[in-house]
Amino acid sequence: MSSRTVIRHGLVITASDEIHADVLVEDGRVAALATPHAQSWTADRVIDATGKYVIPGGVDVHTHMELPFGGTHASDTFETGTRAAAWGGTTTIVDFAVQSVGHTLREGLDAWHAKAEGNCAIDYAFHMIVSDVNDETLKEMDLLIEEGVTSFKQFMAYPGVFYSDDGQILRAMQRSAENGGLIMMHAENGIAIDVLVQQALARGETDPRHHGEVRKALLEAEATHRAIRLAQVAGAPLYVVHVSATEAVAELARARDEGLNVFGETCPQYLFLSADHLAEPDFEGAKYVCSTPLRPREHQASLWRALRTNDLQVVSTDHCPFCFTGQKELGRGDFSKIPNGLPGVENRMDLLHQAVVDGRISRRRWIEIACATPARMFGLYPKKGTIAPGADADIVIYDPHAEQVMSAETHHMNVDYSAYEGKRVTGRVETVLSRGEPVIVQREYTGRAGHGVFTPRSTCQYLN
Amino acid sequence: MSSRTVIRHGLVITASDEIHADVLVEDGRVAALATPHAQSWTADRVIDATGKYVIPGGVDVHTHMELPFGGTHASDTFETGTRAAAWGGTTTIVDFAVQSVGHTLREGLDAWHAKAEGNCAIDYAFHMIVSDVNDETLKEMDLLIEEGVTSFKQFMAYPGVFYSDDGQILRAMQRSAENGGLIMMHAENGIAIDVLVQQALARGETDPRHHGEVRKALLEAEATHRAIRLAQVAGAPLYVVHVSATEAVAELARARDEGLNVFGETCPQYLFLSADHLAEPDFEGAKYVCSTPLRPREHQASLWRALRTNDLQVVSTDHCPFCFTGQKELGRGDFSKIPNGLPGVENRMDLLHQAVVDGRISRRRWIEIACATPARMFGLYPKKGTIAPGADADIVIYDPHAEQVMSAETHHMNVDYSAYEGKRVTGRVETVLSRGEPVIVQREYTGRAGHGVFTPRSTCQYLN
Amino acid sequence: MSSRTVIRHGLVITASDEIHADVLVEDGRVAALATPHAQSWTADRVIDATGKYVIPGGVDVHTHMELPFGGTHASDTFETGTRAAAWGGTTTIVDFAVQSVGHTLREGLDAWHAKAEGNCAIDYAFHMIVSDVNDETLKEMDLLIEEGVTSFKQFMAYPGVFYSDDGQILRAMQRSAENGGLIMMHAENGIAIDVLVQQALARGETDPRHHGEVRKALLEAEATHRAIRLAQVAGAPLYVVHVSATEAVAELARARDEGLNVFGETCPQYLFLSADHLAEPDFEGAKYVCSTPLRPREHQASLWRALRTNDLQVVSTDHCPFCFTGQKELGRGDFSKIPNGLPGVENRMDLLHQAVVDGRISRRRWIEIACATPARMFGLYPKKGTIAPGADADIVIYDPHAEQVMSAETHHMNVDYSAYEGKRVTGRVETVLSRGEPVIVQREYTGRAGHGVFTPRSTCQYLN
Amino acid sequence: MSSRTVIRHGLVITASDEIHADVLVEDGRVAALATPHAQSWTADRVIDATGKYVIPGGVDVHTHMELPFGGTHASDTFETGTRAAAWGGTTTIVDFAVQSVGHTLREGLDAWHAKAEGNCAIDYAFHMIVSDVNDETLKEMDLLIEEGVTSFKQFMAYPGVFYSDDGQILRAMQRSAENGGLIMMHAENGIAIDVLVQQALARGETDPRHHGEVRKALLEAEATHRAIRLAQVAGAPLYVVHVSATEAVAELARARDEGLNVFGETCPQYLFLSADHLAEPDFEGAKYVCSTPLRPREHQASLWRALRTNDLQVVSTDHCPFCFTGQKELGRGDFSKIPNGLPGVENRMDLLHQAVVDGRISRRRWIEIACATPARMFGLYPKKGTIAPGADADIVIYDPHAEQVMSAETHHMNVDYSAYEGKRVTGRVETVLSRGEPVIVQREYTGRAGHGVFTPRSTCQYLN
Repeated sequence: MSSRTVIRHGLVITASDEIHADVLVEDGRVAALATPHAQSWTADRVIDATGKYVIPGGVDVHTHMELPFGGTHASDTFETGTRAAAWGGTTTIVDFAVQSVGHTLREGLDAWHAKAEGNCAIDYAFHMIVSDVNDETLKEMDLLIEEGVTSFKQFMAYPGVFYSDDGQILRAMQRSAENGGLIMMHAENGIAIDVLVQQALARGETDPRHHGEVRKALLEAEATHRAIRLAQVAGAPLYVVHVSATEAVAELARARDEGLNVFGETCPQYLFLSADHLAEPDFEGAKYVCSTPLRPREHQASLWRALRTNDLQVVSTDHCPFCFTGQKELGRGDFSKIPNGLPGVENRMDLLHQAVVDGRISRRRWIEIACATPARMFGLYPKKGTIAPGADADIVIYDPHAEQVMSAETHHMNVDYSAYEGKRVTGRVETVLSRGEPVIVQREYTGRAGHGVFTPRSTCQYLN
Repeated sequence: MSSRTVIRHGLVITASDEIHADVLVEDGRVAALATPHAQSWTADRVIDATGKYVIPGGVDVHTHMELPFGGTHASDTFETGTRAAAWGGTTTIVDFAVQSVGHTLREGLDAWHAKAEGNCAIDYAFHMIVSDVNDETLKEMDLLIEEGVTSFKQFMAYPGVFYSDDGQILRAMQRSAENGGLIMMHAENGIAIDVLVQQALARGETDPRHHGEVRKALLEAEATHRAIRLAQVAGAPLYVVHVSATEAVAELARARDEGLNVFGETCPQYLFLSADHLAEPDFEGAKYVCSTPLRPREHQASLWRALRTNDLQVVSTDHCPFCFTGQKELGRGDFSKIPNGLPGVENRMDLLHQAVVDGRISRRRWIEIACATPARMFGLYPKKGTIAPGADADIVIYDPHAEQVMSAETHHMNVDYSAYEGKRVTGRVETVLSRGEPVIVQREYTGRAGHGVFTPRSTCQYLN
Repeated sequence: MSSRTVIRHGLVITASDEIHADVLVEDGRVAALATPHAQSWTADRVIDATGKYVIPGGVDVHTHMELPFGGTHASDTFETGTRAAAWGGTTTIVDFAVQSVGHTLREGLDAWHAKAEGNCAIDYAFHMIVSDVNDETLKEMDLLIEEGVTSFKQFMAYPGVFYSDDGQILRAMQRSAENGGLIMMHAENGIAIDVLVQQALARGETDPRHHGEVRKALLEAEATHRAIRLAQVAGAPLYVVHVSATEAVAELARARDEGLNVFGETCPQYLFLSADHLAEPDFEGAKYVCSTPLRPREHQASLWRALRTNDLQVVSTDHCPFCFTGQKELGRGDFSKIPNGLPGVENRMDLLHQAVVDGRISRRRWIEIACATPARMFGLYPKKGTIAPGADADIVIYDPHAEQVMSAETHHMNVDYSAYEGKRVTGRVETVLSRGEPVIVQREYTGRAGHGVFTPRSTCQYLN
Repeated sequence: MSSRTVIRHGLVITASDEIHADVLVEDGRVAALATPHAQSWTADRVIDATGKYVIPGGVDVHTHMELPFGGTHASDTFETGTRAAAWGGTTTIVDFAVQSVGHTLREGLDAWHAKAEGNCAIDYAFHMIVSDVNDETLKEMDLLIEEGVTSFKQFMAYPGVFYSDDGQILRAMQRSAENGGLIMMHAENGIAIDVLVQQALARGETDPRHHGEVRKALLEAEATHRAIRLAQVAGAPLYVVHVSATEAVAELARARDEGLNVFGETCPQYLFLSADHLAEPDFEGAKYVCSTPLRPREHQASLWRALRTNDLQVVSTDHCPFCFTGQKELGRGDFSKIPNGLPGVENRMDLLHQAVVDGRISRRRWIEIACATPARMFGLYPKKGTIAPGADADIVIYDPHAEQVMSAETHHMNVDYSAYEGKRVTGRVETVLSRGEPVIVQREYTGRAGHGVFTPRSTCQYLN
């Protein structure tokens, strides 16, 4: 039980510090940090991190394991998906339990607990997708917060499926203003987009690239602005998921300049991929179909700038993989039938480290947007997201000099393609601890399904 | 020599973490942090911090000890001023060496080294005021950076004294774009203000309150905008000192939304005092004469909001005390002759803690704006501004529950009034270590002049 | 037939000129303008306008005569309403024909033609309210434009009645981008407002003032922004009716700075009345219930400023009178049942002249916002809105020095109260010609029902 | 003396109307307008304008005839320049009298009166360049306004020549706030630009294109913003001359959104030419050297948009010609010695008509920005800028279908090149009346030096 691990001679990086220190892990938690040689700790396991980074395990607050969507399911189970996450240096995911229209939140949450329990390689938590706001649902929100499910996602897109109208959104926001919950918003004007989808299909524009063309940046920005104003009326904070468009970032920046508690996340696919990928021939573009869609390349600069200026605070993956064969292919001849989503839970930490290498962000900012802020935003801090005495020993030994080439042949996600096939990056996960237990050791998987446990969350820590 | 101190059972607060941990200090540095009971360190000195905060010593990057101004001198010497700083929980100051027109930077810097050396209770560093930009001065900037004086202040106000014209400013900024220096700007349109000063005096408006009326918020905002655009032309970063007006904050926010490397500091006097103080009768308003001036009360909300949204990043004091008797009185009958400046180096940490108590900022943000960011902004990190293995053991034991009343009768600054006379606040410094040495112990001064040493600085750490 | 009228010695004011000139009217049209004494015209009728203004008759592009609403009807018929308009110096109205859900545009237009024909004292035209966008409706829009009904109103408020969803709005805008029609928008987020209405009523907040409180300025601004972005996606121009909130004006200004063809109208009630009126006791506030609602007084300054800077271009009345007794009273105990609307068609020209007297706008701007721009915006120019050779002789002799007190006792609208009861203004209509025919002569009504005819309109003249 | 002219069958275009009307001119003024055939006027001269436009003569409020600059003089005298203006359909110029440092306004004004008197083909007026603000100058401003010189130009560029510092600008603005004068501003940060000029020359960058590169758009925008804030402090209106940069337009738009009385002019060279011309080889770029400089092509769209949205209100020429041979050549090997200025007084009306042909602006807007608004802005209305009974009969018969090719071989300006050499445009002046006298008749010059007289101006008519 009382196992002790010491990590020696690495550079410990947190959201605010970069220090040459040894780390003592005891009973699954960080017990101490010390300057090298200050202490001569005895330990059951000594990890030599000379020349390596010692970083908090990644916190990916936007995944969809096993999600039913468009008549099929996301291809990663909680087992395969969390294992792949660990391979990529992520030690906590927050997945989305789904309420179906006509059912209770409880039913949805129970179903998702059943899917995840006993199957996860790393710790996990849940947000709740609210598809059906009514008096009962609102009461259930309070209960879920007590159980550690403290954030609720609504959709301004997907009419007839997840869609909430502005009245339902306002009511959920009002409730969150009282109970401390955080509303997460998929901000696209789905009503208008569906008109454009039908018109495009009627014109015979059925290829994947049309998916990007009809889901216009202006309609993401519009919905972002609308969500902000509804939140302002409700007196509630707001977290906008998968921000992809320059114009949407501008709305967030404007709101923040006004002092509103508005937050935004983007994802690696928006930072590294573009509408050019959607236009790849032979239906290959389908691999890149997700919503909000990939944008023309020039939007990337806005996202990087917003990450620097903190108008965007979090990078998560929106991991929602569908195999090209048999799943993405459902949409041949009709882009609207392509399941929406990309694989990515394994790639996030590496891609963002590449941004460090490229000089786009600092090392501390890397940890901040990928570990610390997501943990604080969703009430997992200080258990997750930092390396400090008392925190869970979710620790990654990261080799900043190793090179790798991303590929479906070598990745561990259960999907037949990589969105970054052939991309060469510098930096690689070497060893991963989850609550002190080795999950990856020198690039060998040593974890097990069931090690990861449900982690109740407190409310958002950015609302003082 | 190899003295060891252990601080037990406190809540360690840094810019990013709040942890219950013990701190081991060895040889003037933080050697380790550990969960309580994880380690049974032996030590020469044990400090019980039960129920207390253990925070990094404050970093005040804007002080003017012994500054010659308007025919007199700031009343705090480096000895009295740094001692008062320690009493207030500040363990590092960055003061301003002054180049006089017609003299070299070297002469100014040497003079200030002579004033400070051997006299300081805590560590100190220097910015350089550049009053005379020319080919020689520009070359000297490079040399000073090598010596650890990495920031340079220019004035858009005070024509005939410190004033630089836009060409001189542009040239200094261009140089800083090359050598990594950071230009700090006093942003007020002094040419226009001097016209308004003369007109006011000609109308017989000689009272202190007219000082605030002629130094208009719009003229602070104008100069702020101008400095931003000049920096943009030069490709250089910019740090604007003592921001006080809503309109100036708006210019900073706009520039940051554009992705420019523009930073801003405000001071406690702008957050807690207002033009009402300048209007106090019987010349009492003179106590509050500083530039930029105190603004009408409604500007305070903009400053607090900007501190929350990070459009302002630093709170320093602009400590520049003049006694009411004999010094401030030089301006009776002519507000333009009142020496500009307020005492405050002792009050900053407490006033900002009061903002925590009032719910304006979080505890971590308190440490961030008062310790960590100033240290990073001016190249003192990670020696200063955090508590982490390897950092200088500049540590304050802070009692968050003690109450105190600010007053000239009890403060330690060498000035005959307090700007906050009678203000009751919650929170008080109890014990202060500077590089491990006790300077204040249980509210007794145990330090000595000469303990503090000049601390060379690297360049700004926010430019990646 | 070939009757000739000469108006002598007045100051002729148009949107661009103020000239001392005589006006010759022949066969219902302006035949000539000449400097006094330049011509010795013989005429059947000579009007001496010495000391008076000679202005184009007002063009009120937003009236609702006989409108069915909330189980009752607007209390002015086309006969009483157009007569009152003439008394107030307005010689053209553009009223709204209504499509009911499930019916064609044609049915609605025919019904409104039947109401108006033979009953009007002055010329009239129609906009079309589109309540039910579908393939048929879209085709009918083209036909109506050929018949001179070139503008189409949609509602983002009133779910279940006039409400269109964003898809319906987008489709109508797309059509207008092709056929030259102009979409007029009631911009309030009715879905969110209805939630707030139900919550207020549930809390027992049933008084008229709550009508203003639930219809929040932010929800007007949100809808305004949304309409702008939908129009941008459609590539269509947009005209926002009855703008009342500072925040909505800001959205229009932003869009216009971006170069979008976005236009806005406000109404006298928003310029001269405020939420204070809604709060009048004894249910008197019901007299001021309209949507968008009256706003707190501070919004007025934004509207006046926007009228000066041309971010708002038109002042119309949204004339929609309901008697206090028997009609407004339907909402006793439930503000949501109060019929929405105010009388005003008779007051607009006088109230705006008062703004000239008060120095808020120039005389030319008065004519521009009340006559010329509305005429050009809706394709009535140059027949209406100016005094120039060839234009319809719709001319008002206006006494700029006469004083009057507005009152239900003296007004000519068929409604039992005045929204401006007791308001003293300077300036009064003296004589009115409609196509050369005297309708009011020296403040005696000489017109007749049936003189006014339907006036087909061309498309908006601001889209070059 | 009592000559009568009738212009028949043309389309009369003013800023607000387009009417088919005959125009009767009597005693140098417009006596009447009438629908064709409404009147059977007898006349000494009948001009048949069938198929032609009848427009107000152009008002060019920014010319520099005979200006001494850089050791030479603008090559057009008042005689040659006003004759060329007439050829181009302009019937009024407002030129700039110059105060030299150390001299009075009176001396400068007298000198310019002497240059112009008896030499002009068309009417003229003066602005006053104020190079030396002091107590005496300020008093003289009041006197000049009484004499009809109601606008005063200051320079933020050209240190050592025309430059005023911010204090001098503020004082002049304060005076204009009292006496009704209008400050016109050359808004470029000349102090900063001169640093960049010297640096460029030191690097051997001596070609004309470097003139454009050192006079940065950001430094125009900065000065524009500064002038706006100084005017705001002074409570005065502001007119910014020759606006050329997107960023400067943005500052004007922002100020106008705030409701400030801020106006802007641009010139044809910024609308039709670009930095590409400055880069023409063999020193040909020198022909296009003026300040503010020509900008990269993408700035043009911003200027056109601002002309449409009225963020810019006036198009004038800044006509200031220097021959390529012998004058522009002074700057071979040193772009800073190239006399600044372009010829254009003859081309403005045609170029703007081409914008009508191209669909950029409407016909009415053409007249508004080229005739009516300049006249109103500078107190010449309604004598100049419109065709209305009582106005001066400054009238142009314009053939909208004729084609012409601009060329130095055919133009009438006294300069050896055309900035628009070879440009083909549609539209041409056919006949020009100045106060009823024919100056150009069917493209023959029938005017005479001395016909044009000094025209005193009232103050700006846009300040209500």
